[in-house]
Amino acid sequence: DPSDRRAGKPRSSGMTMVIDKGLGALAFADLLAASGDSIDFVKFGFGTSTLYPMPVLRDKIALAQKHGIAVFPGGTLLEAAVRLDVERDFWNVVLELGFDGVEISDGTIELSRRKRDNLIREATQRGLRAFTEYGKKTPGSRIVLDDLRRTIDADCACGAELVTVEARESGVGVGLYDEKGSCREDELRLLQQAVPEANRLMWEAPQKDQQVALLTILGPEANLGNIAPQEVMSLEAMRRGLRSDTFSLHRVVSHYMI
Amino acid sequence: DPSDRRAGKPRSSGMTMVIDKGLGALAFADLLAASGDSIDFVKFGFGTSTLYPMPVLRDKIALAQKHGIAVFPGGTLLEAAVRLDVERDFWNVVLELGFDGVEISDGTIELSRRKRDNLIREATQRGLRAFTEYGKKTPGSRIVLDDLRRTIDADCACGAELVTVEARESGVGVGLYDEKGSCREDELRLLQQAVPEANRLMWEAPQKDQQVALLTILGPEANLGNIAPQEVMSLEAMRRGLRSDTFSLHRVVSHYMI
Amino acid sequence: DPSDRRAGKPRSSGMTMVIDKGLGALAFADLLAASGDSIDFVKFGFGTSTLYPMPVLRDKIALAQKHGIAVFPGGTLLEAAVRLDVERDFWNVVLELGFDGVEISDGTIELSRRKRDNLIREATQRGLRAFTEYGKKTPGSRIVLDDLRRTIDADCACGAELVTVEARESGVGVGLYDEKGSCREDELRLLQQAVPEANRLMWEAPQKDQQVALLTILGPEANLGNIAPQEVMSLEAMRRGLRSDTFSLHRVVSHYMI
Repeated sequence: DPSDRRAGKPRSSGMTMVIDKGLGALAFADLLAASGDSIDFVKFGFGTSTLYPMPVLRDKIALAQKHGIAVFPGGTLLEAAVRLDVERDFWNVVLELGFDGVEISDGTIELSRRKRDNLIREATQRGLRAFTEYGKKTPGSRIVLDDLRRTIDADCACGAELVTVEARESGVGVGLYDEKGSCREDELRLLQQAVPEANRLMWEAPQKDQQVALLTILGPEANLGNIAPQEVMSLEAMRRGLRSDTFSLHRVVSHYMI
Repeated sequence: DPSDRRAGKPRSSGMTMVIDKGLGALAFADLLAASGDSIDFVKFGFGTSTLYPMPVLRDKIALAQKHGIAVFPGGTLLEAAVRLDVERDFWNVVLELGFDGVEISDGTIELSRRKRDNLIREATQRGLRAFTEYGKKTPGSRIVLDDLRRTIDADCACGAELVTVEARESGVGVGLYDEKGSCREDELRLLQQAVPEANRLMWEAPQKDQQVALLTILGPEANLGNIAPQEVMSLEAMRRGLRSDTFSLHRVVSHYMI
Repeated sequence: DPSDRRAGKPRSSGMTMVIDKGLGALAFADLLAASGDSIDFVKFGFGTSTLYPMPVLRDKIALAQKHGIAVFPGGTLLEAAVRLDVERDFWNVVLELGFDGVEISDGTIELSRRKRDNLIREATQRGLRAFTEYGKKTPGSRIVLDDLRRTIDADCACGAELVTVEARESGVGVGLYDEKGSCREDELRLLQQAVPEANRLMWEAPQKDQQVALLTILGPEANLGNIAPQEVMSLEAMRRGLRSDTFSLHRVVSHYMI
């Protein structure tokens, strides 16, 4: 029964995006060999892409692609390029290094709607996949439903594939999560109703309790991002009803083993 | 002076059980090469055993055994098998993969005493080591002294080797630990008096302050479980009085080095 | 423009000290290959140096040195040797293993000023670099400005290279940080005025928010210690204005990439 199983890659739902804060080449290869099937995207967090020795960076990108995983630099890098007016260099290097896509965000800088449109179009015209991000990194910033709704529509109209909802690497005090990192579940339910096309959204959810809340409310096929490398297997276990927190989500666990 | 040293493996006290949430084969080999002497058991957390590519899983199991470490899948996996009524498949696969034992728990499901007895006996009859677990994963669940006492007696009568006291991977709000993860030290002292056979018990203690409390009250030879891989060396240093938190536990540190 | 770039190694400011709680040899090599340029020192935390199999320990030390990184055992190890009156053995083993230096601290034991002087001199006379530590590990212990001032002067007069300000591995409830781990920013500003020779100081700052506070107040060239291996790249990104938290510190990001 196919409903008992997770879809294979490429998937359009139930996607997992890992945030990589600087794994070495061996650790990265080891992660993919063990749990590459559970990973759809790897984001090289913030501006860390610029800090690797070139061969290490190239190896990581190539290896991810061999596992059917798309890689892109963190939105902060493009924000820095915009702020410093070196966008042309940014695009050239991203293409030259072989990244699959870019993250277009305004977590820290101001970005006009027009500028945002242009960046999304520029990415797709250059053959890059465009992932956009909704939300500010400022502590206390919240999701404004109408604003999110409009952003999704406008971003996708320009060619964006997926809109990620900002939660930072910490998952604390931003967007869906309060200052203790707890998920505002009522707000999530409202968002769920207002944005029925769940496949367009990816929720940053670095903390386990946030993952549990999202999978419980949105279902095991919610797209989750900013997952720490060491939590990939644990999240996959939750998606499949193989961890007690999400036991009730599935009647049947994978037939692979039991 | 043998009292100055930690016993070598196999040990019957001072045992350390690591919870592995999905380490790759390289990371696992690297961990064992550096600190395998400090590890007695590795539990493949929750249902993660089902998520590895087969060769990776087999490599990990074989390697652990080469280091004199017993491996078993997390109790959640057997709970899932019981709930879904696929126990026979469970036993077959566990044996076929070469696991040393199983964890028999009722953290999430209801398990009658009779059923629990049968599972323990089934394990031992199949040549597997039976580790049982006491406690629920429900937030706020507490240890009931008489109940623990009876469970230990009954489990061991059926062939269980060790009874683990549940604390989840987080160590928060369950059993011995309050909602902040602090150890209820008075309760621990009562438990210590009521259950003198310390070697029968293993305490899940994922957080450092929990490990300090247990080693301080029960002594450096307490059996501790759900230790994160990256904390094994630190725990071993504490057992030997080589970290300031447990400085007073030992007069003499290892002669190996100083 | 050289001000746009981080200085190469060896550096006299902007130094990063990693606390290694027991990495395997592979993980260590992998870390250095990816981010060795961002690491100036590695401390083998607490007494973990005594717990490795000899070949693993020797490999790690030699590899760090090949990357221009100085290695030393945690201060706890020398404190244990002092307490147990086995200092001579300590020095012999440290030299024999090839450590570059030692950390001289009194986080847990009492050490007279005279004894401290002697230990620093002993280290330098034996050809070891002397790193000292200021502060107690006792919860609630605080920095006393005059005391720190005098300690720096006296330590350096005896040959100490750098004085580290204690914050433990956790960064909670000790020295500069309150019981929640928040940086006492007013106190830090006072310290900055009272101790103008910033290059003499290294601040233990295990938590990200602590790193942000220190880099923001003291500048991106502050020396930071007790950095977890997995946070090295993230800290380096912050030093270069490549993470949103420190965006305003730099106008120009590395030219390496964009």
